[in-house]
Amino acid sequence: MSLTRIHNFSVSLDGFASGEPQSAEAPFGHAGQRLHQWMMATQSWDASGTAGVDNAFAQQHDPGIGAEIMGANKFGPPGWPDDQDWKGWWGPNPPFHTPVYVLTHHVRPPIEMEGGTTFHFLEATPAEALETARAAADGQDVRIGGGATVVRDFLAAGLVDHMHLVQVPIVLGRGVRVWDGLEGIDEGFDVEVVSSPSGVTHFTFTRKVPS
Amino acid sequence: MSLTRIHNFSVSLDGFASGEPQSAEAPFGHAGQRLHQWMMATQSWDASGTAGVDNAFAQQHDPGIGAEIMGANKFGPPGWPDDQDWKGWWGPNPPFHTPVYVLTHHVRPPIEMEGGTTFHFLEATPAEALETARAAADGQDVRIGGGATVVRDFLAAGLVDHMHLVQVPIVLGRGVRVWDGLEGIDEGFDVEVVSSPSGVTHFTFTRKVPS
Repeated sequence: MSLTRIHNFSVSLDGFASGEPQSAEAPFGHAGQRLHQWMMATQSWDASGTAGVDNAFAQQHDPGIGAEIMGANKFGPPGWPDDQDWKGWWGPNPPFHTPVYVLTHHVRPPIEMEGGTTFHFLEATPAEALETARAAADGQDVRIGGGATVVRDFLAAGLVDHMHLVQVPIVLGRGVRVWDGLEGIDEGFDVEVVSSPSGVTHFTFTRKVPS
Repeated sequence: MSLTRIHNFSVSLDGFASGEPQSAEAPFGHAGQRLHQWMMATQSWDASGTAGVDNAFAQQHDPGIGAEIMGANKFGPPGWPDDQDWKGWWGPNPPFHTPVYVLTHHVRPPIEMEGGTTFHFLEATPAEALETARAAADGQDVRIGGGATVVRDFLAAGLVDHMHLVQVPIVLGRGVRVWDGLEGIDEGFDVEVVSSPSGVTHFTFTRKVPS
């Protein structure tokens, strides 16, 4: 069974997955790199990095994934739909190596990149996007890549099987909220929590099997 | 040096320290007892309870405390100032055993209870209330007892030396937010984080010593 998974989704103590304002210079706004320092300090990011619990979680991002769905705000800074040459933040060989479905109101033809990544542009509900991505994933899992509003939409639609959420002990105060509209979402999941010596806390949400 | 401390302050994953609506029947609104189950399961609450990390933290609530400051919303349900006989939720022998300063716009004479607790009613800024409570604490520490708005006000005023905050992995969706207006508050503290087998995560905020 193909699962819908979220990995390395980093939020502040006050529930923001991004700061503000988002721009080409500051993709996470005033949050800067603070939400993702834990990940960049691991071997999965840098060969000289750490090899402990943070790395163990970070390395789950890729294996078994056959397609990603991401929001328009992850694909580019505000205004990217006006730039016909925009091909994402990640250079000629993006780190996805699968089909990637970008949810946007500004549909354009697919962009084939090096290394197996193809960006497809889709105006669709979460359920429709998932159906499309799952067909492309060829039996493997689909990753919901963020940002926050896309994660929230997929959680609200009950489409997430596995979520690895990382809480960073900072208070951002403003930005894009993750939890709004998700009252009681925890009840549908088994939740395991483990804090890391790095200071972040890893939450693993696993969808409860209906009894 | 007398410190200002917060203990066992429980918040949801989305940053609410209480649900809504608060009433005599439901002091924490729709949150019910979910924010405090971790504490009620420990020996500090019930002799047959657990003796691990949750209990170790819970037991730090009382030692070394000479006075408490609490908000009007902790002292009673909405409307309590209209009830001249209201003496708090805790019966004739409240679990404080020190002077307790209730911040309220509806000042009334002090109420002396059994066991050393006296409720004083004070209309004051956080700094003024702390000065009064500290004088009464006779060299011991002052506890900020909550609720959320009082904790927030004392944090915002830079008056907190030690905060033990417990995050419960539930999404309440609505209620009283803890973190609003506290952007960057973490920068003034050393933060240690440890998750418990019970599923909650303990955050210890210790004020940084100025270098």
